[in-house]
Amino acid sequence: MQFTIQRDRFVHDVQNVAKAVSSRTTIPILTGIKIVADHEGVTLTGSDSDVSIETFIPKEDAENEIVTIEQEGSIVLQARFFAEIVKKLPGETIELIVQDQFATTIRSGSSVFNLNGLDPEEYPRLPQLEEDLLFRLPQDMLKNMIRQTVFAVSTQETRPVLTGVNLETEEGELICTATDSHRLAMRKATIERNDEELTFSNVVIPGKSLNELSKIIEDSNELIDVVVTENQILFKLKNLLFFSRLLEGKYPVTKNMIPAQSKTSFTLKTKPFLQTLERALLLSREGKNNVINLKTLDEGLIEITSIQPEVGKVTENIQSEQMQGEDMRISFNGKNIIDALKVIDSEEINIVFTGAMSPFVIRPTDHDHYLHLFSPVRTY
Amino acid sequence: MQFTIQRDRFVHDVQNVAKAVSSRTTIPILTGIKIVADHEGVTLTGSDSDVSIETFIPKEDAENEIVTIEQEGSIVLQARFFAEIVKKLPGETIELIVQDQFATTIRSGSSVFNLNGLDPEEYPRLPQLEEDLLFRLPQDMLKNMIRQTVFAVSTQETRPVLTGVNLETEEGELICTATDSHRLAMRKATIERNDEELTFSNVVIPGKSLNELSKIIEDSNELIDVVVTENQILFKLKNLLFFSRLLEGKYPVTKNMIPAQSKTSFTLKTKPFLQTLERALLLSREGKNNVINLKTLDEGLIEITSIQPEVGKVTENIQSEQMQGEDMRISFNGKNIIDALKVIDSEEINIVFTGAMSPFVIRPTDHDHYLHLFSPVRTY
Repeated sequence: MQFTIQRDRFVHDVQNVAKAVSSRTTIPILTGIKIVADHEGVTLTGSDSDVSIETFIPKEDAENEIVTIEQEGSIVLQARFFAEIVKKLPGETIELIVQDQFATTIRSGSSVFNLNGLDPEEYPRLPQLEEDLLFRLPQDMLKNMIRQTVFAVSTQETRPVLTGVNLETEEGELICTATDSHRLAMRKATIERNDEELTFSNVVIPGKSLNELSKIIEDSNELIDVVVTENQILFKLKNLLFFSRLLEGKYPVTKNMIPAQSKTSFTLKTKPFLQTLERALLLSREGKNNVINLKTLDEGLIEITSIQPEVGKVTENIQSEQMQGEDMRISFNGKNIIDALKVIDSEEINIVFTGAMSPFVIRPTDHDHYLHLFSPVRTY
Repeated sequence: MQFTIQRDRFVHDVQNVAKAVSSRTTIPILTGIKIVADHEGVTLTGSDSDVSIETFIPKEDAENEIVTIEQEGSIVLQARFFAEIVKKLPGETIELIVQDQFATTIRSGSSVFNLNGLDPEEYPRLPQLEEDLLFRLPQDMLKNMIRQTVFAVSTQETRPVLTGVNLETEEGELICTATDSHRLAMRKATIERNDEELTFSNVVIPGKSLNELSKIIEDSNELIDVVVTENQILFKLKNLLFFSRLLEGKYPVTKNMIPAQSKTSFTLKTKPFLQTLERALLLSREGKNNVINLKTLDEGLIEITSIQPEVGKVTENIQSEQMQGEDMRISFNGKNIIDALKVIDSEEINIVFTGAMSPFVIRPTDHDHYLHLFSPVRTY
């Protein structure tokens, strides 16, 4: 194999596939990045067997020559070194030559690296997915959906299925749900389908995979194709394929957890409420329980308090709008509410309580694309 | 005690004194910040008994009212909470009230914090230093002197005196030296003295103290007064006093370590040389020895190589200027040279070797304010 490639483009793609590579893998070949040069261009692959990323660099892009292939071929190079090396190379182009015994030479400017490569034949093949279940959505919407749900997945392996975000369709809409059983984040979005009859449920993507995907997709409205199979999901971007395995097991039915009635409800400005809770958390996080107390006062005033006996107490009154229903006194994990308020882009939120010991709901006031559900905390 | 203070100014000064406070102290009162309000303004103190920082906020500054003192007094508040709390308070001013039993109330906007304070009488007094040994230098020069020496101090406690930077005077100049016995950084500077006869030596400031001081001083040419006593040093900025204890023990005499003769010498561009070494280090840091090899070739060409048998080899040739003397082949700790090149602000450096097994010197070509000395590494 021998080719010369534009440094910046190569660095960009190497960094992307390196995101899938884990140094803790038990399969030695997966510590490497696979590089294949053929008559169309250069393909890079990285994988930790849960997530696989494949990118393609065409010989030409918008009439600029990016790669010159002198000889087709393939090699696997240690991801950790290779990604660092290409980033630091001095020239505008990089020449890569593979000789006998996978001995690889990388030249750029005055710099020459001789690396011991690995046998590309040992590298596992990526799955070939049946493209039956296919839908489309804009990159920026997907990025937002991940941001607004993935923080709520469970970090505990006791119920593995809760460490993922569940995808399902309902009346032509895509619904993403994440819960750690104390809080739940739900996000809806309209998708384009290749088949109007397309429906699916219980498609659970590991939170870790979505976090990696989120780093790769951009804030553009270019469409991403998504292919769903029984145990894999594939996100197809321009010149990049992102595969993730799906989590096994039955995702809990969450729809009937969301209370329909209301005992007390009011509206608050998102950002001031967030800041009030952050101040209250300064004391309560010390006790590691993050407990913050909320109490309705007269005329729509809300009192937020937090107590840490050795340190002190914080009290803050905030004015709500449109208060309805009974007086309410409730305690909750302030950190969970803060996490949710941080991903709500709307200026105002509505909180609906159904009782001091029942879950409560936060929704933006200007649309119903997402909601957040929280369990209260018993403080006695 | 009761006063109202501008939030931004208070936050700034609280952050500064909090830099001296360690959560790992064995003296409980030192986990707090001492606050004293008197008829002139508010004084804040933080200390870990090695470093103490005292700042003063006057009632008025440039005719703006900063503090209104309603009642004089003092209190000690837990630094960790207090620094976080003031940073997050919502109002433009902060009111601080101390009642019985050191119960402290902090009000700002709609927020009210009740904190348990500590007895200010328990807080140790700062040392009163005799101001005999006093010199002056600009803040930005001091900041540079710290940056250009402190990285070379030893991190090992086997010879405690080497964990500090040594200050001494020589012919009216200040000389700062740091060494971990494998490398040495030396920086000279002209200082203003209150007594032309002022001389001192073996004033060893802990590297940790200098790193903290460096975060506080600014890139201005305003003068800092420095007071030196037998076991303390005091840096006096406008409205801020920075005390550090000095390290005990005899600092090694380093002057005669610097070779006067030359066997081989040449000149290199600083930045390209730095980048070449950084690339070579990508392989050699893996073996944790950071060994990089340098070899002179014909016509002033220098070959830099680094080998990591399992991974590969890197070779890079760079062109030197004004090569003089014999051919040379030497190995060194590349990380140490990189650290030094990063703090050299000059475009060109001169390297002088006295033999493959003898220390070598790097100096900027445009002045003699600093030099860096390195031991070679034996590779056989």
